[in-house]
Amino acid sequence: MILRLEHIGIAVQDLSNSNALFEKLLGITPYKEEEVPSEHVRTSFFQTGESKIELLEATHPDSAIAKYLEKKPEGLHHIAFEVDDIHAEMERLRAEGFQLLNAEPKKGADNKWVCFVHPKSANGVLLELCQSNP
Amino acid sequence: MILRLEHIGIAVQDLSNSNALFEKLLGITPYKEEEVPSEHVRTSFFQTGESKIELLEATHPDSAIAKYLEKKPEGLHHIAFEVDDIHAEMERLRAEGFQLLNAEPKKGADNKWVCFVHPKSANGVLLELCQSNP
Repeated sequence: MILRLEHIGIAVQDLSNSNALFEKLLGITPYKEEEVPSEHVRTSFFQTGESKIELLEATHPDSAIAKYLEKKPEGLHHIAFEVDDIHAEMERLRAEGFQLLNAEPKKGADNKWVCFVHPKSANGVLLELCQSNP
Repeated sequence: MILRLEHIGIAVQDLSNSNALFEKLLGITPYKEEEVPSEHVRTSFFQTGESKIELLEATHPDSAIAKYLEKKPEGLHHIAFEVDDIHAEMERLRAEGFQLLNAEPKKGADNKWVCFVHPKSANGVLLELCQSNP
């Protein structure tokens, strides 16, 4: 079951510049910065209400963020929904015709298990399902 | 002051098709559909936790959504933050160097006063400030 909007991911060229911009915008500082080596990204998180803004900077040309920014300008990259049971939701969405980008949950940022859904099957929106890792 | 992420706006070609898709994804139906004549859009809203997903279909070629979809595929269009005092936030952000797209708050969907911020001044993200209309 999808519980709520967990975060919005924003692709940025320079995390430090974008942190400064979002600090001005939101009037708060990131509650954490985290490098996710498996995804070749450096991230920062801002809490706004119960949802978060995640800024993502590529750390390697193979990063999905680097590839995204080769084709598109900085901006909204994905939205993530917190789910109660990621395996069940993956199975449910697969059966509903959504195209999952990973066959099994993988370890994402912020201590979550995550699975991405192809934007072609979701109205042009890159979706992430995530479940907190107990 | 920015209080929380209020909604994510998604540009769609066909509201009815996209409603069906998001009903499958989220497992809920829109809590309302609303036409906003001043913006030439028809919208639907899904509640997920404290934030909403707003789907936007153009009703006229002059609509910002129609113009967006002439250049880009369907997908993430804007993010909106609830503020406690929209005039004060507009003034604060203007002073911080953000480029506001309207000089005064205007009436948006879902009974809100809204103001948009140019994506060029906000990391490529079209931002909306919104305040509930008491």
